[in-house]
Amino acid sequence: MSGTSFDGVDAALVAIRGRGLATRVELLAFHTMAYPAAVRRLVAEVSAPPSGTVDRVCQANVVLGELFAEAAMAVAEQAGVPLGRIDLIGSHGQTIHHLPEPTAVAGRRVASTLQIAEPSVIAERTGATTVADFRPRDMACGGQGAPLVPYVDYLLFRHRARGRLVLNIGGIANVTYLPPRCRAADVVAFDTGPGNMLLDALTARLTAGRRRFDRGGAMASRGAVSKPLLRGLLRHPYLRREPPKSTGRETFGAAFAHQVLARAKGLSPPDILATAAAFTADSIHGAAERFVRPLGPLDEVIASGGGCHNRAVMARLADRLDPVPVHTSGDLGLPVDAKEAVAFAILAHETMAGRPGSLPSATGARRAAVLGKIVPGRRPPRR
Amino acid sequence: MSGTSFDGVDAALVAIRGRGLATRVELLAFHTMAYPAAVRRLVAEVSAPPSGTVDRVCQANVVLGELFAEAAMAVAEQAGVPLGRIDLIGSHGQTIHHLPEPTAVAGRRVASTLQIAEPSVIAERTGATTVADFRPRDMACGGQGAPLVPYVDYLLFRHRARGRLVLNIGGIANVTYLPPRCRAADVVAFDTGPGNMLLDALTARLTAGRRRFDRGGAMASRGAVSKPLLRGLLRHPYLRREPPKSTGRETFGAAFAHQVLARAKGLSPPDILATAAAFTADSIHGAAERFVRPLGPLDEVIASGGGCHNRAVMARLADRLDPVPVHTSGDLGLPVDAKEAVAFAILAHETMAGRPGSLPSATGARRAAVLGKIVPGRRPPRR
Repeated sequence: MSGTSFDGVDAALVAIRGRGLATRVELLAFHTMAYPAAVRRLVAEVSAPPSGTVDRVCQANVVLGELFAEAAMAVAEQAGVPLGRIDLIGSHGQTIHHLPEPTAVAGRRVASTLQIAEPSVIAERTGATTVADFRPRDMACGGQGAPLVPYVDYLLFRHRARGRLVLNIGGIANVTYLPPRCRAADVVAFDTGPGNMLLDALTARLTAGRRRFDRGGAMASRGAVSKPLLRGLLRHPYLRREPPKSTGRETFGAAFAHQVLARAKGLSPPDILATAAAFTADSIHGAAERFVRPLGPLDEVIASGGGCHNRAVMARLADRLDPVPVHTSGDLGLPVDAKEAVAFAILAHETMAGRPGSLPSATGARRAAVLGKIVPGRRPPRR
Repeated sequence: MSGTSFDGVDAALVAIRGRGLATRVELLAFHTMAYPAAVRRLVAEVSAPPSGTVDRVCQANVVLGELFAEAAMAVAEQAGVPLGRIDLIGSHGQTIHHLPEPTAVAGRRVASTLQIAEPSVIAERTGATTVADFRPRDMACGGQGAPLVPYVDYLLFRHRARGRLVLNIGGIANVTYLPPRCRAADVVAFDTGPGNMLLDALTARLTAGRRRFDRGGAMASRGAVSKPLLRGLLRHPYLRREPPKSTGRETFGAAFAHQVLARAKGLSPPDILATAAAFTADSIHGAAERFVRPLGPLDEVIASGGGCHNRAVMARLADRLDPVPVHTSGDLGLPVDAKEAVAFAILAHETMAGRPGSLPSATGARRAAVLGKIVPGRRPPRR
């Protein structure tokens, strides 16, 4: 998969046994293939009008298909597993547009989403049956097409005695709440607000583009939080909206970073990043307090995503949530960087088993549906 | 399916028995759902830059998915067949961009094509497993992604004793040559040049938009062919290019019609249409003489597509080809308007059987591949 940061393709090689609630997954290898600069520019170009035109979307779909195929082949090679032994590939693709709110178009009201990275290319290059494009089916059922990972959280992390909050800090931060002994309908999931997106945009601006992110949260950790700026940020209306809700680059992307910088006049770069890190952590903590606590016990947090490497965010989050412990998915055997990619392998596996992969309680859909499109490989799938 | 004329969705309900060379197909019902004017405008808007932007492509994909689903439901209702008895839907979708020549993009050379009409919407609305998006896989194999119907021509029309030329006159005209007792590798197929595309564009211009096509070729039949204009048109370099070759709106669309009108100064509208009809017929006949005759016997032509309703084109073609008879697919039980839609039902059926649906001799691909993406319906497919 590649997420909202579009910095590269994450590929996980996994062994999956069982299905549904009996799913057991083992990570065999993980590989991130960074997008070359020209591809990053291409994804940015095709993601929005006016530069995102049909000819470039048409071409970018195939370029990314080739890159996703290479990422899959690289992780298999890294693990020493011949391609012929790969049964199935699940590909999220690259989201280049997401319009979950119904809009009038040619006399109809439609919600829509667009993921690219042509799965026919992935299936042809690797020879493996490929399941891709998971979001449109949930939208066809009236859902937001997101979030999809909560179903996998439900399969892997539900606990008979503990209430768990599964947190992913990607470009956007999102949570899945799993009450003790929960059933599918009990799962609550939503985006809490910015993850790395704001921090990355600020870092790029404050270093004049020399750095794309604040590695390890080093710069933020050297700064002091500005209370007035933080207070202002925490008034963002998204934080108060009731779930289900989702957000993205439109709300917390470059334009928002620009506003933050305008309000941060006089602060040093480390102070600005420290404040943004606190905003990220506090918006997650606030969501837990406001929207999760009323639903049931909160015994532990299980974090994943690139944001787990930002010590400023994680230290503040642990402090705020104390005494609730903040574990990482790595503590449960699923490295933080690999989790989202593993999730789409599991969703693909569920699709091949004819099982629904969406959680209506998370996406708002009328019903759970078997997700994705199956592109046959060059040999019949093993059973 | 909807073709290069993008005037509506053709839906065919068929009973298919057997597979591969044993395929037998029976047409149960056929329905054309005209695109509302707003949808025709939307398709034109999203098909080319700069108006074709990612947000509109994203939305149009879902709008057309809804329309294709409605067309499928309408043809089932017309036949009195409950949706629950539809095993499978094959959807070509609407081509909005087709770039078969490899182009440098972000440091790679890619060929690409883009069909929209979201199949997840079709599968969700109808409940039927839907196979869609047949072209990208052939391109991933190095092919042009077109033409795809020749494989179906091969299944349905090959003959043990006769050499047959299967002709489809859609927006573009294309032919499939099937030598007697042919095997897949013997099939030759290519686009001959304009079908209805030029005639339709001229009719719209000459009637100031009051008519979108010359019904039955009535106006063309009242005119006289201008020999100097026809001679000039027949010098078009596409006609001389060796197959495999394909063409489209870029070559024979509005810009070309504009050139033809500029060269037709002083001619009456009926004379212009008569000459364009002769050009269409003669370019087909020329292709047969130049590129088909050297390959084997030509015993009959089997025509299909909307162009069969244009008496000016068909009369000229019969005259030119005489003594080779020009039959229509309707004479063999497959109505001329339904044939292309039926072809994609058969391609979908082959995909579900795990059988390749492309003909490398027609598309130029390195190998034949199982085409399309399978979107699971709301119940397992019947076997």
